[in-house]
Amino acid sequence: MTLSLEAVAKHNTPKSCWVIIKNKVYDVTEFLDEHPGGSNIILKYAGRDATLAYEPIHPKDALEKHLPPSKHLGSVDSASAKALTEAKEQRKKTKDEIRVEEARKQRPPLHRILNLADMEKVARHVLSHKALSYYSSAADDEITYDENARAFTRYFFNARVMKPVSQCDPSTTVLGFKSSIPVFVSGAALAKLGHPGGEANITKGAATGGIIQMVSSNASLSPEEIAAAASSSQALFFQLYKHKDDAIAEKRVRNVERLGYKAIFLTVDAIVPSSRERDIRSPWVLEEQETGPQWHKDGEGAADTANVFGTAGGLIVNDDRDMTWERTIPWLHRVTKLPVVVKGIQCVEDAVLAAEAGVDGILISNHGGRQLEYSMPSFEVLYKLRKQRPDVFDKVEVYIDARRGTDIVKALCLGARAVGMGRPFLYAQSAYGIEGVAKIIAILEREIVTAMRLLGASSIKDLKPEMIERVDWQPLVHAKL
Amino acid sequence: MTLSLEAVAKHNTPKSCWVIIKNKVYDVTEFLDEHPGGSNIILKYAGRDATLAYEPIHPKDALEKHLPPSKHLGSVDSASAKALTEAKEQRKKTKDEIRVEEARKQRPPLHRILNLADMEKVARHVLSHKALSYYSSAADDEITYDENARAFTRYFFNARVMKPVSQCDPSTTVLGFKSSIPVFVSGAALAKLGHPGGEANITKGAATGGIIQMVSSNASLSPEEIAAAASSSQALFFQLYKHKDDAIAEKRVRNVERLGYKAIFLTVDAIVPSSRERDIRSPWVLEEQETGPQWHKDGEGAADTANVFGTAGGLIVNDDRDMTWERTIPWLHRVTKLPVVVKGIQCVEDAVLAAEAGVDGILISNHGGRQLEYSMPSFEVLYKLRKQRPDVFDKVEVYIDARRGTDIVKALCLGARAVGMGRPFLYAQSAYGIEGVAKIIAILEREIVTAMRLLGASSIKDLKPEMIERVDWQPLVHAKL
Amino acid sequence: MTLSLEAVAKHNTPKSCWVIIKNKVYDVTEFLDEHPGGSNIILKYAGRDATLAYEPIHPKDALEKHLPPSKHLGSVDSASAKALTEAKEQRKKTKDEIRVEEARKQRPPLHRILNLADMEKVARHVLSHKALSYYSSAADDEITYDENARAFTRYFFNARVMKPVSQCDPSTTVLGFKSSIPVFVSGAALAKLGHPGGEANITKGAATGGIIQMVSSNASLSPEEIAAAASSSQALFFQLYKHKDDAIAEKRVRNVERLGYKAIFLTVDAIVPSSRERDIRSPWVLEEQETGPQWHKDGEGAADTANVFGTAGGLIVNDDRDMTWERTIPWLHRVTKLPVVVKGIQCVEDAVLAAEAGVDGILISNHGGRQLEYSMPSFEVLYKLRKQRPDVFDKVEVYIDARRGTDIVKALCLGARAVGMGRPFLYAQSAYGIEGVAKIIAILEREIVTAMRLLGASSIKDLKPEMIERVDWQPLVHAKL
Amino acid sequence: MTLSLEAVAKHNTPKSCWVIIKNKVYDVTEFLDEHPGGSNIILKYAGRDATLAYEPIHPKDALEKHLPPSKHLGSVDSASAKALTEAKEQRKKTKDEIRVEEARKQRPPLHRILNLADMEKVARHVLSHKALSYYSSAADDEITYDENARAFTRYFFNARVMKPVSQCDPSTTVLGFKSSIPVFVSGAALAKLGHPGGEANITKGAATGGIIQMVSSNASLSPEEIAAAASSSQALFFQLYKHKDDAIAEKRVRNVERLGYKAIFLTVDAIVPSSRERDIRSPWVLEEQETGPQWHKDGEGAADTANVFGTAGGLIVNDDRDMTWERTIPWLHRVTKLPVVVKGIQCVEDAVLAAEAGVDGILISNHGGRQLEYSMPSFEVLYKLRKQRPDVFDKVEVYIDARRGTDIVKALCLGARAVGMGRPFLYAQSAYGIEGVAKIIAILEREIVTAMRLLGASSIKDLKPEMIERVDWQPLVHAKL
Repeated sequence: MTLSLEAVAKHNTPKSCWVIIKNKVYDVTEFLDEHPGGSNIILKYAGRDATLAYEPIHPKDALEKHLPPSKHLGSVDSASAKALTEAKEQRKKTKDEIRVEEARKQRPPLHRILNLADMEKVARHVLSHKALSYYSSAADDEITYDENARAFTRYFFNARVMKPVSQCDPSTTVLGFKSSIPVFVSGAALAKLGHPGGEANITKGAATGGIIQMVSSNASLSPEEIAAAASSSQALFFQLYKHKDDAIAEKRVRNVERLGYKAIFLTVDAIVPSSRERDIRSPWVLEEQETGPQWHKDGEGAADTANVFGTAGGLIVNDDRDMTWERTIPWLHRVTKLPVVVKGIQCVEDAVLAAEAGVDGILISNHGGRQLEYSMPSFEVLYKLRKQRPDVFDKVEVYIDARRGTDIVKALCLGARAVGMGRPFLYAQSAYGIEGVAKIIAILEREIVTAMRLLGASSIKDLKPEMIERVDWQPLVHAKL
Repeated sequence: MTLSLEAVAKHNTPKSCWVIIKNKVYDVTEFLDEHPGGSNIILKYAGRDATLAYEPIHPKDALEKHLPPSKHLGSVDSASAKALTEAKEQRKKTKDEIRVEEARKQRPPLHRILNLADMEKVARHVLSHKALSYYSSAADDEITYDENARAFTRYFFNARVMKPVSQCDPSTTVLGFKSSIPVFVSGAALAKLGHPGGEANITKGAATGGIIQMVSSNASLSPEEIAAAASSSQALFFQLYKHKDDAIAEKRVRNVERLGYKAIFLTVDAIVPSSRERDIRSPWVLEEQETGPQWHKDGEGAADTANVFGTAGGLIVNDDRDMTWERTIPWLHRVTKLPVVVKGIQCVEDAVLAAEAGVDGILISNHGGRQLEYSMPSFEVLYKLRKQRPDVFDKVEVYIDARRGTDIVKALCLGARAVGMGRPFLYAQSAYGIEGVAKIIAILEREIVTAMRLLGASSIKDLKPEMIERVDWQPLVHAKL
Repeated sequence: MTLSLEAVAKHNTPKSCWVIIKNKVYDVTEFLDEHPGGSNIILKYAGRDATLAYEPIHPKDALEKHLPPSKHLGSVDSASAKALTEAKEQRKKTKDEIRVEEARKQRPPLHRILNLADMEKVARHVLSHKALSYYSSAADDEITYDENARAFTRYFFNARVMKPVSQCDPSTTVLGFKSSIPVFVSGAALAKLGHPGGEANITKGAATGGIIQMVSSNASLSPEEIAAAASSSQALFFQLYKHKDDAIAEKRVRNVERLGYKAIFLTVDAIVPSSRERDIRSPWVLEEQETGPQWHKDGEGAADTANVFGTAGGLIVNDDRDMTWERTIPWLHRVTKLPVVVKGIQCVEDAVLAAEAGVDGILISNHGGRQLEYSMPSFEVLYKLRKQRPDVFDKVEVYIDARRGTDIVKALCLGARAVGMGRPFLYAQSAYGIEGVAKIIAILEREIVTAMRLLGASSIKDLKPEMIERVDWQPLVHAKL
Repeated sequence: MTLSLEAVAKHNTPKSCWVIIKNKVYDVTEFLDEHPGGSNIILKYAGRDATLAYEPIHPKDALEKHLPPSKHLGSVDSASAKALTEAKEQRKKTKDEIRVEEARKQRPPLHRILNLADMEKVARHVLSHKALSYYSSAADDEITYDENARAFTRYFFNARVMKPVSQCDPSTTVLGFKSSIPVFVSGAALAKLGHPGGEANITKGAATGGIIQMVSSNASLSPEEIAAAASSSQALFFQLYKHKDDAIAEKRVRNVERLGYKAIFLTVDAIVPSSRERDIRSPWVLEEQETGPQWHKDGEGAADTANVFGTAGGLIVNDDRDMTWERTIPWLHRVTKLPVVVKGIQCVEDAVLAAEAGVDGILISNHGGRQLEYSMPSFEVLYKLRKQRPDVFDKVEVYIDARRGTDIVKALCLGARAVGMGRPFLYAQSAYGIEGVAKIIAILEREIVTAMRLLGASSIKDLKPEMIERVDWQPLVHAKL
């Protein structure tokens, strides 16, 4: 069946809501209430073409999966398709789109990227305002975001000299899977916002660099698409945002196990949305950019109602907010034979409980400062765990978030098995696609090996707690951005 | 009797001083010495219309209450009334008034206010210079003001995961009265300076938000007016600045008890004026704004004598400076059956003495940094009280000043019953009236609930001292304003 | 005898060096080597009129005292006197002189000075570059100067409430002499550089304010002139820079005792010049101001040889660099019956030695950061003395340098008897003469009384060590200048 | 044999690579792989004149030493020589060269340099961008560079008064060799980059000032040239970057011993290149300076491949990365009778091991922050060594890096024998040649003597650990540059 734009346009209310995505028409009336991002954002496109808004944040098969076949109403007729194409071609670019296009042309050659801050700097130029707001934002005043990074700066090395280091091997294993350096990609969502290749850019770059990717439940590509992008020998982990309906969650876990994912990282620090104010303000900033420098317009349409949780909030509205150690871990063990890692441990007590619950690993993380403001900086938690409960390191693998080569080496000195990174990979793929991802892995390898050698370590096992020391002053850290 | 402007104008000396307020003529000669703000400010208007200066800082019935009927001399005649109206209409607006009018037009829509700092930012634009100086000023170099806020930043959470938090209740009681969130409005004076609705804006917004208002002795509306603005089920507390004359003080307490106020907060940290330099400088800044950018004029009139205590100082000249635990608390208990809270505790020793004196609660506060410069930051006092004398929390309810959702949750972890806020409500009502007040209560509720859930707490009683930890470094805090 | 300019001009070499001061001619050939400021500066004026350079830094009778009568050669003849007057009148003002004249006209009215920082701000505008450089400079990078002030900010009050403070008395005694507030003027040299009235401005202002002045050996007025400016009941102390020749030093001490000075403050922290770089650079900065914005000229005359110790260095070239506890204190006790105070104690050990040496008081000071860079901040020394050797406070009176009312009250809490201030009085007299001096005393009294009352203290003896507490963070202090 | 430019030009590939240096032709084909700076940089000049790039970073005899005589192919013919001269004369100056020429003309007269920061400031103006990048760069984010300096600021003096200091002697010995002040020149490479006189400027200035120079293996003059510049009584030390081939290393040691060098400083903290990002970016910055303000050009030639280790990295590619206490120190003791000092100790443990290995001294250093980022600041290591293992000071002489007079005195209080300085001498010779070097020695002497006297010390042995104290706050340090 083919449909005209006029026919679709009549279904522009909550009572009958049709949308067009890539020339296909869908009846989403009954889906409105289930949409994780809320119904308002869909109703904005009721009776109209929603392709432009839909594409960068949804896997290709999202609608197919969520809508029963009966709601697939068919395609628009050829005149309509032509009209849509013309409209797309004639659409006036926004100031932000023009800025981004110009910035992409001005990117420096890749070899001039010396560190991850350089890469982030390029990404900040070439990302759309919306994408940057989603990627870079953190909770409230972004204090935890900053303090996560500053925590590393309070630890200095007791470097050893006169050790043979001409041979230096930074490789390790994570949950038994080989990794060229003690780093894995941590779950990072909505990669298509930054680059059309999306999360697959990361997959392919990780293959080149020899590291493992943990794939987010909220990726803008489906687990299938990402698995298809992987090389045959490449290990993928899955970051699970557990649905509050155990059956739905189980289906998702079984699906990724079937697809060959090698571990489940259960996210426990983002069960409710936080207030990422930078993200929430993003549409208003863009609006003002278009309409001029005045402070604010007096009137405002009803459609401008604030989504108080920003892009991020929509992703987790259906998540399980009542998980417990007693119930959820055993459930997950029943559902899958894959190793289980708890992602989002923020204090020593919970690290101990996780070990007692029999999981295989813990990722000490406060979601990159994106959830609870004033959550203890992760590196401080790692340090306290080492001092108060060194036995935990013998029971589970311990991971943590980090950024620079020296950060990673510090974490390994304290007993971390490996380090997870999210944003840096989003920035790298946004700026240079697959090559960007491979580049930062190469940079990290160089930084790690240099630091190990200058510390007197020729392999990961030479890194010891006594090699780092917490200092009682706060170093001055150069603002790099 | 009606009087002409000419007749009034003759009484322009300390020996015979008449003033016109809203077309009525008063003989204030004998009142000059009793005026809390000093006689100079009245003499500036001797023989003239004083309405414009009088209105924003006095309750409507202030003159009626303080002047015997014989001093109510009657109204101006109709020609004079017309002349006064014309003068008012033709009065040239000051640069500050013009700026404020423009700023009010530019206010952002309310839904774009994401936090209390946003609200303060709007208020800083729309408040008159004088009002802002009074509201925002603090003692001396405003170090204690800043350090009060920074103290909170040195405490981080040990967040717990895997706790059921889908249901999360932030409500509590204060002195037995229900509150939707653990926050009450702390005494904040001169609200009419910021908005014509004055303190009643706060009363009505508090009703909407379900919280309790503590009303200042120095409010620009009378206790009667505020009580009249309250809903029938709404609890009001009274902040007592005790007059040095016990009889006058007793009359005031009995009056508010009769009006239905539910508790007395005795202010003990503001018995003498401090030096709020920003407030004192305010008239000079305005004068320079009108007369140009030169540094200072050489000559100056006698009338320009500095009021070394600013707007604030005038409010407490008659207060009791010789209160003691032995005398004043028993006196207050004799005068009223209402619960008594001591507002302005600044060290552990006095918290203990207050508990021993049998009061119902203490408000740990240094008057928002407005009184003693270098008074220990309140949150540090709370922390020390928890560590040194946890028994005090069992004997009295403990309150403290705070600002953001995470601040409040930190205070509750340490055992505070609720948190008082003053300036934020002044800012909110100044910027958006009643809706502004309701808005910040809604913001606080969202912030508190989010923080509680991400901490693993589903009710106030789940918040425990071990959930927060004092850190030994100073976080970088973004300047929001 | 009268002399022509031509006749004088012939004596322009080190072998025969005449100079004219206020129309009188002096043969200073033999004095060249004894001049504390070095011979170079005199030779610059050899054979010429030196009045302009001489006057602001020398007491009127300096030449008379140092030169034997035979070197007083007489006056210039009347034609020469006329020529000198004309030259003086026609002299083109420097850019700095023009700037200063303009700035003096723009001074704000005195009542707008709310604190000592305001006063310093005015002084910084109206002082010549040279005077400001001398007054404000400190050693090396001025770290100790800054840290002296920051030390106070790390101490907060445990304020007490519910204490009777309607009566509050800030008066005390220093070495038995009455003082209206616990503050005295500390030795501050070269006051004529800032104001023609010189140190006598301070003397008269101190009389008005009821405090004691300690007079510097290096004052630009003689001890006689200053004593003459004092009121009959006013106490003066003398700051002794001990000459290396005991006989000369003894003569100086006996002279001031005879003049009625009440105590000797022996300066021990400035026996050799330090490097006050700001002071040393001052002439170069002025030169560049006159000759344009280029970085530096290539060539330079021999006369431009740097005085590596600046204005300050010249003042102490003949001081005793070999003083010891064993020799110098007994010597001083033999020479005078006046009480002796050691000025410049910088560690606990020396405070103890001073007490054992039998002096009457110690002034904990590092010369306002003007001598040894990285000398421990004075307030930290006071704090350590209180903790480690409280007995010292029973044996000697202890003084310390400070700035603001709260600083002073903190020092008194720790057991200091009084506080010395130097620069603030130089700034005050430079900006407003006598009235400026009286003004800052009034400001300090208000600040001290306010702080005492808000602390719960009604007299100096109520100030106790437990009322202040050292905190473990560094407060943010507003830059006031 | 003479050769034409055309003949040389044919040999422009890796298979046959000829270059012209000062009109002489060399076949460097077989040397390409051995070049410490890599083959790429040579190939850039294959078949061409390389004089301009070669001269500032190589000793005059470098080619002669490294190339067998058969590869010295002869001179260019006279027409070619003329063409080269003309090309040199007609070469258009770069913007950076023009800037430098102008800046050199504007240098202030030497007497206006009051401290080493002043000297560095001049050098930063007159150095080429490339030279400054090499001299000033440090590892990664240059945190260790900054923290090295800030560490000193956390130590304050307990200054003593009433000690005889009119005589004050700052001289000492280093490894038995006399030094006028407790300072020696630490190895600093590539001095010709900053001044044509190169390291010999330092040698001659050190002779004037009476201090010892340690000469770098990577100097731009040969050990012979530097020894020739020394006065007969002057002591030189040699900084050894040990070649991985023991035989080559031995030859080098024996050579300097034969030349009269007095000690070997074995460098152990720079065995692999670090990432000195400022240095690496230098050529790109220059390129952009020439070609305009746009961000980056799209295309790029193959020749623009980044040397990821900058100028510095090339210097150490052949160094021994497998040195051990067990093997390397005994080897060095066998090879030479000279005293041996280990340069680059970064923790207490290694200081102890060095002492046990029987060396004569240790230089606590992290290579000026140029190698391992987050290496513990050297002064903190010295402090810990004094507290934890004071016995080490009795077994070996201990040195450390420092900058200002007070830094040096602090180090000596803790037991350091002397202080090494590298960059300051590079800056001084770059700015003013020999006179610059002598000047900073004179400045340091004045600063040391002043600090000693104000501390109450008349000789080095009077400096004691109790005279300095670590404070628990971070002083505010003025940014001088």
